[in-house]
Amino acid sequence: MKQKDKKNINNAPIQRLAKKLSNPLKQVEAEIKKNIKDQEGLITITAGHLINAEGKRLRPLLTLHISRMLKYRGNSHINLAVCIEFIHNATLLHDDVIDGGKIRRGEISTNQIWGNKISVLVGDYLLSKAFKLMVKNKSLKLLEILSETSLILARGQIQDVDNSLNILLSEKKYLEIINAKTAELFRISCYLPTILTNQNKSVQKLFNDFGLSFGMAFQLSDDILDYFGNSKSMGKIIGKDFFEGKITYPMIHCYNKSSTTDKKILRRFFKKKTRSKTDLVQTLKIMKKTNTHQKSLKFMSKFLKKAKKNILKFEGNADKVYLDALVDHLLIREK
Amino acid sequence: MKQKDKKNINNAPIQRLAKKLSNPLKQVEAEIKKNIKDQEGLITITAGHLINAEGKRLRPLLTLHISRMLKYRGNSHINLAVCIEFIHNATLLHDDVIDGGKIRRGEISTNQIWGNKISVLVGDYLLSKAFKLMVKNKSLKLLEILSETSLILARGQIQDVDNSLNILLSEKKYLEIINAKTAELFRISCYLPTILTNQNKSVQKLFNDFGLSFGMAFQLSDDILDYFGNSKSMGKIIGKDFFEGKITYPMIHCYNKSSTTDKKILRRFFKKKTRSKTDLVQTLKIMKKTNTHQKSLKFMSKFLKKAKKNILKFEGNADKVYLDALVDHLLIREK
Repeated sequence: MKQKDKKNINNAPIQRLAKKLSNPLKQVEAEIKKNIKDQEGLITITAGHLINAEGKRLRPLLTLHISRMLKYRGNSHINLAVCIEFIHNATLLHDDVIDGGKIRRGEISTNQIWGNKISVLVGDYLLSKAFKLMVKNKSLKLLEILSETSLILARGQIQDVDNSLNILLSEKKYLEIINAKTAELFRISCYLPTILTNQNKSVQKLFNDFGLSFGMAFQLSDDILDYFGNSKSMGKIIGKDFFEGKITYPMIHCYNKSSTTDKKILRRFFKKKTRSKTDLVQTLKIMKKTNTHQKSLKFMSKFLKKAKKNILKFEGNADKVYLDALVDHLLIREK
Repeated sequence: MKQKDKKNINNAPIQRLAKKLSNPLKQVEAEIKKNIKDQEGLITITAGHLINAEGKRLRPLLTLHISRMLKYRGNSHINLAVCIEFIHNATLLHDDVIDGGKIRRGEISTNQIWGNKISVLVGDYLLSKAFKLMVKNKSLKLLEILSETSLILARGQIQDVDNSLNILLSEKKYLEIINAKTAELFRISCYLPTILTNQNKSVQKLFNDFGLSFGMAFQLSDDILDYFGNSKSMGKIIGKDFFEGKITYPMIHCYNKSSTTDKKILRRFFKKKTRSKTDLVQTLKIMKKTNTHQKSLKFMSKFLKKAKKNILKFEGNADKVYLDALVDHLLIREK
């Protein structure tokens, strides 16, 4: 099977949803295009480089789909989806500066082409634009949630940076970090349509909790793929987190379950400023001994189950099978 | 005269205003302290490092003072002043990452202590916090202006970075850049109190135009001091812009008025990645030949006059002498 076909099969649930939502998605794309068009051409080009690259638009899709499930009749969900995508892209731009990222969405990353300075500032621009867009919706409630989320994303990333090389990072703190840096934005992508449609508390909670669990599983799947993904079909390098000194679930599990000797080896790796490919090979051996791949997938599946449980609670809407398929896709996705 | 005393005399108009506004200023300081206190200790420490350093709080002072001049009776001006100071500090944090700044407000800069990653993210945190704070004021009008301003600041800095080393930068484009990156935030610091107090269009325009001219003069004075300041009493190095390859008014004037030979020399300097101290000495000689210091001060004074003209228009309020003194201080300030 060709690489591209394999990727297509793995992303099929997202593509099916995108097809179903092709009309509102087109509106979202048009609004994105319109809103990164700036009087300063460099902004249009640099912001467009990332945001027009082949992203999955997973968060906007969730917002659009849940708005439809809840029979939303207005037009604010378009702006909301754009706003969430802008916040997401702002964090990606700053992420790549922070991690020295080289490839993003299959393209050379913005920081590699235009430098860190422009990436930081275009990130700021997108974040400001996100707020400006949301002001248009005239909902103080939505603005309150979005500004709080934006704050939480920054906090999560600060905690992430602060715990770099910290091999003693606890599972609890790790979960707190991925909740803030990743799950939070998924949470509001799913929760805000319930605010837009004035749902009762139980429906609000259901989509809130679905988004949160989905987001946790999404980051866990990312972190697992970073050690155990198929590097050929992923199109990205295995061990990025390891080389960057980022401590994620597989490493936490592996370290806790290792022998005293292996613990000592792992500690030594993360005392160094850089880690070699040989270090990664040795780490993967220790991970095999501690059954880290399987145990990490099992850990992730707890969140997948929670997400599914919440979808089940929502009654009488055939569209929820799309959400179910999105959850399943996290188990087989390779990118 | 001791350095500190000299600085005190130069900043006397700001200090007098701060003394007059000591009560609301205390409230602003308390709100700043409260709002950078985060569950993540590192945020409280890093955000506090910059924001608690001895800043002049010039923008909050303008907001507080004009609110008082316009007899504002509510409490929203406090949050507004904090919000503006947070946006300002967010840009300072990102600025220092961009310029590799080492000293800020007399202290070692945040990026030098905690690194660029943390500086970028704490900047994001402060920007998000600014919006979160403003949502509390429940004014969509204020939020609209603030998000637009935040966007303009990013645009201005992008243009600034984009024109680095561009010795052919026009005066017009330079003015556009400093308008966006600096004057805009001064403008709204003065304009927003008129919105808070529902002033008529002419009063709105008056304070809007005052803030804008004041901000333009402020940046011009910064750019002039960078070549002609007294390095001892300023406590910072002369020629920072020159070494960074930033083209500012003095350089634009100097280049345009230079002989063909000197133009060639200047072009050569800005074709290089780095410039030496000898290059600066030679540049200062060319600046002397082209009377750059005096001509730059004259250019700046146009904006000072505009600012003063707008203050004069506002009738029947003795407090406006404080604004007049602030304008005058831009001519003698050394930091």
